[in-house]
Amino acid sequence: MATLLHYPLCAFSRSIRLALAECGVEAELTEEKPWEWRQGLLEVNPAGTLPVLITDDHGPIAGPYAISEYLSDTMDEREARGFQPFPGDAAARAEVRRLVDWFHRKFYAEVTDYLVEEKVFRRFGPQSASPNMEAMRAGHDNLRYHLTYVGHLAETRSWLAGDAMSFADLAAAAHLSALDYLGEVPWEEFEPAKNWYALLKSRPSFRPLLQDRVAGFTPSGTYADLDF
Amino acid sequence: MATLLHYPLCAFSRSIRLALAECGVEAELTEEKPWEWRQGLLEVNPAGTLPVLITDDHGPIAGPYAISEYLSDTMDEREARGFQPFPGDAAARAEVRRLVDWFHRKFYAEVTDYLVEEKVFRRFGPQSASPNMEAMRAGHDNLRYHLTYVGHLAETRSWLAGDAMSFADLAAAAHLSALDYLGEVPWEEFEPAKNWYALLKSRPSFRPLLQDRVAGFTPSGTYADLDF
Repeated sequence: MATLLHYPLCAFSRSIRLALAECGVEAELTEEKPWEWRQGLLEVNPAGTLPVLITDDHGPIAGPYAISEYLSDTMDEREARGFQPFPGDAAARAEVRRLVDWFHRKFYAEVTDYLVEEKVFRRFGPQSASPNMEAMRAGHDNLRYHLTYVGHLAETRSWLAGDAMSFADLAAAAHLSALDYLGEVPWEEFEPAKNWYALLKSRPSFRPLLQDRVAGFTPSGTYADLDF
Repeated sequence: MATLLHYPLCAFSRSIRLALAECGVEAELTEEKPWEWRQGLLEVNPAGTLPVLITDDHGPIAGPYAISEYLSDTMDEREARGFQPFPGDAAARAEVRRLVDWFHRKFYAEVTDYLVEEKVFRRFGPQSASPNMEAMRAGHDNLRYHLTYVGHLAETRSWLAGDAMSFADLAAAAHLSALDYLGEVPWEEFEPAKNWYALLKSRPSFRPLLQDRVAGFTPSGTYADLDF
């Protein structure tokens, strides 16, 4: 069986946990603390980032980009379970990838990095420090803009990238779920985004994420509530 | 014919110019100034980032991730010209993507953002400012570490990701070429990286990049020199 090196509040790890579950690929989870720079992690991913999927057939696959595309590349080798990370024709697949980049690069830099990594990773990291309040304020402002964009996509399409659920939905939900754990998402003000998230949150692939608990951080009251 | 919205010293744009040329896809270049946030750019890419490939058949494809994978997805539609952005089996393709992520995310954040964007984009941007000297010092230090890693890969493999030239080589060369324009690369101290770069620099796909000129920034003396 494959092993996934992950961290519970790492949004990139979460997106891959969701993708593995949706693709029907079983993987044992091993928790890594990304701020520890463990030698064993650097050996399978010199960048020291998460997640890393240790496969039986193809060795370690490092990073959400390589893993998500790997799941797509190896679909023929698996029993088809319906979910395609990048569904549709070349144009549809490009739209999925544009949005994956949106969430894994832009949303990450403008929101997750400020609100999750400032709050959690900094606390445990080598230079244990209080969160930077200015960064957190920027993160909150940016989050509202992104929730509006998610809502706009969800209102004009069946799923964020088009007619089918794709890795773009999982990437977006991964970031929002990490923020939601910390009680940072003002869902009530962003109804269309909330309705889209509720659909994802009720999927079986989401269940393990809702059971995550990180020492020192109590999940928000509605984090695991499907009727939030 | 396709159109590529690009900026000459944008490393992401450069990686796609190289990939288009290697794939034998002709595209007309249109220069965008990324700091202007032109409405027409936001219409084809709401993230406002470069490059964007406006295709005849599939509309706009936004960002280096979506474009590079699009070039791979549509290979069957084109006359085969030999170059595959992501060559090999699933494991080999994953290794290419790990390294593309290395250069387009990590190298960008640790070097290009500090040395190219600080120096060039800041100068022309809305809040025209002098480069941040501390950031530039960090960029120089980080560059030495990355040149060592490139040299290590080049010495142990035919190309950075394995037996065949791939988009990982083009992504790495794109960042280094933008830095080289500004005279920031201490090639003489990093012989293996230099030898690998010399191979790429002499390819026909590289020629148009070597002819780039950006007002206000004279290219380094050896920028266009194949025998540097």
